[in-house]
Amino acid sequence: MKKNKVSNAVIRRLPRYYRHLDDLFRGGVVRISSNALSRSMGFTASQIRQDLSCFGEFGQQGYGYNVENLRKEVAEILGMNRGHSAVIVGTGNLGRALIQNFHFEKSGFALTAAFDVDPAIVGGQVGEVPVYHIDRLEEYLQQHPASVAVLTVPRGAAHSIADRLAGAGVRGIWNFTNTDLALPAPGPVVENVHFADSLRTLSYMITDVE
Amino acid sequence: MKKNKVSNAVIRRLPRYYRHLDDLFRGGVVRISSNALSRSMGFTASQIRQDLSCFGEFGQQGYGYNVENLRKEVAEILGMNRGHSAVIVGTGNLGRALIQNFHFEKSGFALTAAFDVDPAIVGGQVGEVPVYHIDRLEEYLQQHPASVAVLTVPRGAAHSIADRLAGAGVRGIWNFTNTDLALPAPGPVVENVHFADSLRTLSYMITDVE
Repeated sequence: MKKNKVSNAVIRRLPRYYRHLDDLFRGGVVRISSNALSRSMGFTASQIRQDLSCFGEFGQQGYGYNVENLRKEVAEILGMNRGHSAVIVGTGNLGRALIQNFHFEKSGFALTAAFDVDPAIVGGQVGEVPVYHIDRLEEYLQQHPASVAVLTVPRGAAHSIADRLAGAGVRGIWNFTNTDLALPAPGPVVENVHFADSLRTLSYMITDVE
Repeated sequence: MKKNKVSNAVIRRLPRYYRHLDDLFRGGVVRISSNALSRSMGFTASQIRQDLSCFGEFGQQGYGYNVENLRKEVAEILGMNRGHSAVIVGTGNLGRALIQNFHFEKSGFALTAAFDVDPAIVGGQVGEVPVYHIDRLEEYLQQHPASVAVLTVPRGAAHSIADRLAGAGVRGIWNFTNTDLALPAPGPVVENVHFADSLRTLSYMITDVE
């Protein structure tokens, strides 16, 4: 796998390939021509071939793609079968929404614990997930190393918690705090979720040219 | 503005330009060379020039970009100064998180109302936003046309509510339901928020090559 040479743009498209292939697979599609796949995804067939060629040989001239196989291969590339685990820090509205409604396991993650400071919730559970006091973060992560921490704390707490997570050795931070986390390298990979980018794209689409 | 000819990829990058320019502006940066902008954004200078050239002439040979002006121009292109309004349907955890923590106004939207079916919350407010019964959706939108509806209802209700929103004339649906909304054309533009894509990208980044 020529991982180091893969561009950011290709990486960002991989989850869309997976999502699309997963939909096709669940819809009972066994094989798909590269043209049909390109039409339904809105990429050109040559773009798809080029993207996938970063990771090996997929598809076959005159046959197209076997949906189940390609879905599995893309999942493999994305690391979705590696037994990754996650903890979530911050059980406010957004944290609760993710714990209760987001299917971590469909992305290959087991969500094992949540952390907060609120005495009303510490010691209990949200859904099936136990909530511990943030003071126990390092202790917990030492005993149960997590691949990723989901950061849903208030903005003001983002930097100090991120530093502690980096110190505790998590490899990735899924950052919902709308704050750029400047962590010293080599630290965790930070993936920022920017709701505003999405709304502003929609704004562009609905705005008439003057 | 050659809006019809602008590719999806360029459109998706525009909010990132805005966000970056906004950070620079707030940081007091008055002007930036195209090389410095490209380094800090991770795009090549020629990519940036090419992206912006879809919308007109920006920057100046030997001067670079005036941050405040370019930020304003990009905001204009994104339709952020058009007095857009939004309503939100669904005041569960995610809906509440958005109402209370997401700054709609920073993307040029006024959030005017929320809708739900829960008698415990209908008639009250979340933050500053009044919550009405979903039965009053069409009536409200007739009196207060909204540019965008934020869809944070449970998955099972997504299609029927989306149909009603389309019927009531909203121009965009910001869809958090993890369901593909197949609406008859010409209907609202749908912008899907796919949390899983983001987590799977992070998964890729933290996964070692085998």
